[in-house]
Amino acid sequence: MQVPVDDYLAEVLAACRQDAGELNSSIPELARADPDQLAVAVCVGGGRVYAAGDAGARFSIQSLSKPFVYALALRDHGVGFVESKVDVEPSGDPFNEISVEEESGRPRNPMINIGALTVHALVGEERLDAAQRFERVRAGLSAFAGRRLEVDEAVFTSELDHAHRNLALAHLVRSREIFTLDPHEVVEGYSRQCSLVVDTRDLAVMGMTLASAGRNPLTGEQVVSEQICRQVLSVMTTCGMYNAAGDWMTDVGIPAKSGVSGGVLGALPGQAGIGAFSPRLDAHGNSTRAVAVCERLSADLGLHLMSPPADGDTVSAAGVVDADGGEQYRAVVQGALHFTSAERMLAELSTVVPGSTPVTLDVSRVATMNDVGRRMLGEAVRRLTADGHRVDLVDPHGLTAEVDTGDATQTRVLGSN
Amino acid sequence: MQVPVDDYLAEVLAACRQDAGELNSSIPELARADPDQLAVAVCVGGGRVYAAGDAGARFSIQSLSKPFVYALALRDHGVGFVESKVDVEPSGDPFNEISVEEESGRPRNPMINIGALTVHALVGEERLDAAQRFERVRAGLSAFAGRRLEVDEAVFTSELDHAHRNLALAHLVRSREIFTLDPHEVVEGYSRQCSLVVDTRDLAVMGMTLASAGRNPLTGEQVVSEQICRQVLSVMTTCGMYNAAGDWMTDVGIPAKSGVSGGVLGALPGQAGIGAFSPRLDAHGNSTRAVAVCERLSADLGLHLMSPPADGDTVSAAGVVDADGGEQYRAVVQGALHFTSAERMLAELSTVVPGSTPVTLDVSRVATMNDVGRRMLGEAVRRLTADGHRVDLVDPHGLTAEVDTGDATQTRVLGSN
Amino acid sequence: MQVPVDDYLAEVLAACRQDAGELNSSIPELARADPDQLAVAVCVGGGRVYAAGDAGARFSIQSLSKPFVYALALRDHGVGFVESKVDVEPSGDPFNEISVEEESGRPRNPMINIGALTVHALVGEERLDAAQRFERVRAGLSAFAGRRLEVDEAVFTSELDHAHRNLALAHLVRSREIFTLDPHEVVEGYSRQCSLVVDTRDLAVMGMTLASAGRNPLTGEQVVSEQICRQVLSVMTTCGMYNAAGDWMTDVGIPAKSGVSGGVLGALPGQAGIGAFSPRLDAHGNSTRAVAVCERLSADLGLHLMSPPADGDTVSAAGVVDADGGEQYRAVVQGALHFTSAERMLAELSTVVPGSTPVTLDVSRVATMNDVGRRMLGEAVRRLTADGHRVDLVDPHGLTAEVDTGDATQTRVLGSN
Amino acid sequence: MQVPVDDYLAEVLAACRQDAGELNSSIPELARADPDQLAVAVCVGGGRVYAAGDAGARFSIQSLSKPFVYALALRDHGVGFVESKVDVEPSGDPFNEISVEEESGRPRNPMINIGALTVHALVGEERLDAAQRFERVRAGLSAFAGRRLEVDEAVFTSELDHAHRNLALAHLVRSREIFTLDPHEVVEGYSRQCSLVVDTRDLAVMGMTLASAGRNPLTGEQVVSEQICRQVLSVMTTCGMYNAAGDWMTDVGIPAKSGVSGGVLGALPGQAGIGAFSPRLDAHGNSTRAVAVCERLSADLGLHLMSPPADGDTVSAAGVVDADGGEQYRAVVQGALHFTSAERMLAELSTVVPGSTPVTLDVSRVATMNDVGRRMLGEAVRRLTADGHRVDLVDPHGLTAEVDTGDATQTRVLGSN
Repeated sequence: MQVPVDDYLAEVLAACRQDAGELNSSIPELARADPDQLAVAVCVGGGRVYAAGDAGARFSIQSLSKPFVYALALRDHGVGFVESKVDVEPSGDPFNEISVEEESGRPRNPMINIGALTVHALVGEERLDAAQRFERVRAGLSAFAGRRLEVDEAVFTSELDHAHRNLALAHLVRSREIFTLDPHEVVEGYSRQCSLVVDTRDLAVMGMTLASAGRNPLTGEQVVSEQICRQVLSVMTTCGMYNAAGDWMTDVGIPAKSGVSGGVLGALPGQAGIGAFSPRLDAHGNSTRAVAVCERLSADLGLHLMSPPADGDTVSAAGVVDADGGEQYRAVVQGALHFTSAERMLAELSTVVPGSTPVTLDVSRVATMNDVGRRMLGEAVRRLTADGHRVDLVDPHGLTAEVDTGDATQTRVLGSN
Repeated sequence: MQVPVDDYLAEVLAACRQDAGELNSSIPELARADPDQLAVAVCVGGGRVYAAGDAGARFSIQSLSKPFVYALALRDHGVGFVESKVDVEPSGDPFNEISVEEESGRPRNPMINIGALTVHALVGEERLDAAQRFERVRAGLSAFAGRRLEVDEAVFTSELDHAHRNLALAHLVRSREIFTLDPHEVVEGYSRQCSLVVDTRDLAVMGMTLASAGRNPLTGEQVVSEQICRQVLSVMTTCGMYNAAGDWMTDVGIPAKSGVSGGVLGALPGQAGIGAFSPRLDAHGNSTRAVAVCERLSADLGLHLMSPPADGDTVSAAGVVDADGGEQYRAVVQGALHFTSAERMLAELSTVVPGSTPVTLDVSRVATMNDVGRRMLGEAVRRLTADGHRVDLVDPHGLTAEVDTGDATQTRVLGSN
Repeated sequence: MQVPVDDYLAEVLAACRQDAGELNSSIPELARADPDQLAVAVCVGGGRVYAAGDAGARFSIQSLSKPFVYALALRDHGVGFVESKVDVEPSGDPFNEISVEEESGRPRNPMINIGALTVHALVGEERLDAAQRFERVRAGLSAFAGRRLEVDEAVFTSELDHAHRNLALAHLVRSREIFTLDPHEVVEGYSRQCSLVVDTRDLAVMGMTLASAGRNPLTGEQVVSEQICRQVLSVMTTCGMYNAAGDWMTDVGIPAKSGVSGGVLGALPGQAGIGAFSPRLDAHGNSTRAVAVCERLSADLGLHLMSPPADGDTVSAAGVVDADGGEQYRAVVQGALHFTSAERMLAELSTVVPGSTPVTLDVSRVATMNDVGRRMLGEAVRRLTADGHRVDLVDPHGLTAEVDTGDATQTRVLGSN
Repeated sequence: MQVPVDDYLAEVLAACRQDAGELNSSIPELARADPDQLAVAVCVGGGRVYAAGDAGARFSIQSLSKPFVYALALRDHGVGFVESKVDVEPSGDPFNEISVEEESGRPRNPMINIGALTVHALVGEERLDAAQRFERVRAGLSAFAGRRLEVDEAVFTSELDHAHRNLALAHLVRSREIFTLDPHEVVEGYSRQCSLVVDTRDLAVMGMTLASAGRNPLTGEQVVSEQICRQVLSVMTTCGMYNAAGDWMTDVGIPAKSGVSGGVLGALPGQAGIGAFSPRLDAHGNSTRAVAVCERLSADLGLHLMSPPADGDTVSAAGVVDADGGEQYRAVVQGALHFTSAERMLAELSTVVPGSTPVTLDVSRVATMNDVGRRMLGEAVRRLTADGHRVDLVDPHGLTAEVDTGDATQTRVLGSN
């Protein structure tokens, strides 16, 4: 049996093949793109990538690089320092607008050019020269993509020839002493960054790396930390789609970023990375067809951030009589043990009458457990123990090894029930 | 055993009891609040509410009413019509700013006053008189809270005495013919709406109703549709915390709304409704301590929208030899069957060599299934059948009743394995 | 001989009879105007009014009332108080924009609606009721026009029916406590003010009253002080033509104000008041043909503020031998004695060698003298006296009565030479 | 006798010697100025310059160069072309703001840096290299000052070291293709322009050149045309004092420009050029003491643009009986013959009953006559002739040589009466 996701994606493309939009005209080299190209790719856990259309067609990454270079700057200098240089507020402005916080001169956010230029300058230590800084950017983006990315020199040259506005922005930031590098070197490095070549599959993998708490699903490399991914995805949510942030959030609901070469990249935490590509742009500078593809995926696949995840966590509990005739209370938890499911487990356990009835907590079907889950489980064991119960943890996979059950010495951890 | 969430919440309050901020001064009646009050409440699935502090202290709902009245307008007129009247873009402006889209005169979003006044006017049919419209608003908000809410007449009178700015906003909207009701009646109705009295528990329940796809967790009433909740939560995400949207998203990551009486309300889809309350406000008009409480809850409980949900969906699959010696392929799915988990199931099944080996799909441990899950499961059955397999669905709970398996007549649905 | 100015004005109208522009559509009653009407009038010193075209056609005064009601408020409360309520900075905004100084809430200037509404509220003492305030406004405008102006009730009613935006503005100003009157009464009074009926001749007379330091050239009434006129004309210069202030200044260079009924009013200090009228408006809301008429008048008649006035002040001076053989120094000044001409006189006198030569200053041809002229003349007499000269002032018209010549007891004032 | 203007100016300085304000800190070299310096100079017709204080102290011209270089660009390319590149509207923004017209990218006006940089680039033909362009600027400014101005190399170097913001502005303008020169060369040339050294007397002479229709009062050189001066003075009026244009107009009422080195320059058409200098600046970047000096001069000397010029034009007319017993009508005009005075003459003549009575127009005391005066005088002669009169022009100075009296062959021009 072949997985039908590819077929589904092909159907999506067929439905989104309308003709609206214009090629980017600000960079001559981009105006040479084939306007009919159309591609989509979805990367899921385990690194499986589904794709349809011109998924191997290559194009310069342009603004799609912004969230990833932001992640690199955060990794190199921390959230606090980077936020002191570039704010995280939506600007309501088009991508090339001059949008800075009046008092400090900080660019409004890292998804508009003036912020992205600043972020480029923040990668690596200040003493790096321009070439070293670019190599660090390239290495980082390559780690997100899971393969070494190369520069399209023709695009780079064309970009640099039309960089007057970016030069203006870089000088402006420099004048407020947000950075002290040479503005021309920053623009050159940034133009080179924008000229790195990707395909639609790369976008899906890069998105899934953000969506997987920073671990590349193909290579397994932990590129950046979970905290950084949270920061980057948050900023993509409020600032990624320029001045249509509200529309995108209500309609699509996937943290995303678009680029003038026609790509759109989405990342739904824990679930999927999405790439879509088609060169014709709408008035906001977003690819008309790639946007349509994302709207369709969100609606069809139920990927909207605000869709309550179908709740797969279950807790079953009951008083039972065991083999030797003794009474026992038994709670079985399955799925993920986090705040919501742990609370449900605790709510069940709160019905147990204090006393000597033994309590068995079976976590053998728990797939994962986060910090809160661990703490709440530990607390349950301590409280039950304090109430007089003996507590048995059925934990064949050793998930509870780090659970602090206090001095609940009566707790037994069993390999199976 | 007592559930330890209450204790935890009490600790949170203890940590957030700093003194910063000022009482609201724009409405004299609010300036009479006890500045030391502090409360928190969390409502989870099943309608359990945990609370600490002055959780029974009552205060006027103020701007916390905005997302809910927006939901009522959406219910009465649909997303398209309401968006033609009020946009969904963040304004970057303080709550009482005059922020309209230049060309159409549409208020920027329903979370700033000018938008909320317009939304109030949109509740119910146009022919309603002011009293009828307010009663419809009250009934709707009461349904969200799960109890009948009453107006604080002293606050209402004080509010109306200081409504010059709201009158300005309402006349402004009227001048662009966004609505044609009398602006004074709209402001009176809106002031009455803002004067409805709630406590912190109510906020948690109201938030959980939005987070539960519109079903009130206490009363079970389906107040509004899932689609409406998605729209409302999206708008809260980008516009709920006024001009600190980006900071809130990166730091807290919970769709939220604040009000000048000192409340903050959060709603994390599928997981929790949160209420926090303390009357002292910061410069943005948000409660300093309630904001601190929310930051703490998000960090401690792992409630950030961008935290990949701990993955609790598991699929296990294996070729097995059954009792009568025949070979068989068996896949067991547990948790929720949605796109991500269904894809994983399909990826497993794609390894099955086409032929006559019977395939058993055991969904007896699946807790829930959404449309995509159903469609992908159906597709799997059809494709396996086309490959020559006989497919048995183990589905004791009848979850697959609506799954379309095509003309896969060989499919048997088994009550148990 | 007939004065040819009327003929000239008729030629100007003939040259400006192009068809561009649209009738105002915001107030239905104004949309009923005859779009082909066209008139011009010029009022000069002595109250002579030249006119051509439909100079007797009547129309509502609309925004043309703004500078005059501003003058009344200044007269009633002084420049300092009025500036504390309404600023004098150009807003760069269209006439109906919400343009207030952020911190104080002061409207940007009195020529945009939000400022003009505020100014209306400032006329007379605060205790006046609405009818009394309006009568004070009417009386003041009538004094500027030199005849009692009446309200067009149909326009007033139409205006009030479409006053939503003005109501918004008035409530907004009220919310910042710039005034504490009832906003609805202010808007009603302001609408009535805008509905006063004038013709193009009235505009010229009203303009000339401002240009004549506040004295109505027809009635001789001193309506407001010279200082107030200076303030009003200054504000008309920077704010009178809405967001085309710079263009108007470079092209026309006459302090001016336009109104949606199609009038434009200009006032060139000391020289002329100008009225022009034609109902079709351009995109800024200015009458297309009335603007063209003003451009033409400015160019043809050399009325640009920045045209150096042709210099008519002359000073002749010479050493002469008088009848009895004695040497004498004699300076004759003609025209106006102000800083520039007085300086020229002093420069001439500075060439007189100190000693006993008598000096005669002949001011018999001086037409007028201002404070500076008087002071500089007095200083000249004192200094010449100190140098040893006897000074004779030839002053048959008694212009030097108030000149302080110190203890220059040798000065003789002669009725003629 | 010594002219008392110098003494007066010394008094003004004494009264304005308060300590408020801070030295400019954006350019280190300027921070080295002596904060106590204070000077004033006034230049009047004939090139007389009065001065007091540190009138010989030298400082870099900075933004005071802007109106003059604007004049040079206008001279080289005409008003239409230059306005297509730089608009003339007040921006309401501080001097270093990014203020461009959205659609075209044109800087808002030539008095803010972004406009002044563009204007620098417009001087001379496009093919000039940077050194040639600067020499053209220097030559032009020197012509305005009446002496060759030199660059302060230390200031220039310091300026260029801190030119990041100007570089940003120049790249921005370049990106909109308002000019196509190299932005760095433009900023270098502009910095050099700003580093030209002047003293307070120079400012007064430069201002008087603008106020004298472009003729330098010292050298007599016609630097630019009257039309250009009108354009430049108009723009100074609305845009010269940054975001305090309205305040300056109402308070001072003299077209002016300020600079960060502490100078303020004023130019009152036909009357005076003013220079004031003191290095301490207020929050707008204007010299606190130089501003106070200008306010004082305006008030004391009656120099406000909106003060109606004291009317020195006189017309006397009467029917007289001449020596040989014949009746005659005689009108004597003195002062300047322009629209206002010519109209007065015509109004007098309109009382003459048509017939054969000879009419004598005595213009022997007319000092100057402009085009309008000439045309109106010609028209008077033609109409009187048509009415049957013989007209005698008494014109010993030949002022009426260019007056077109039609075929009024009966007109006699007499050398004296």
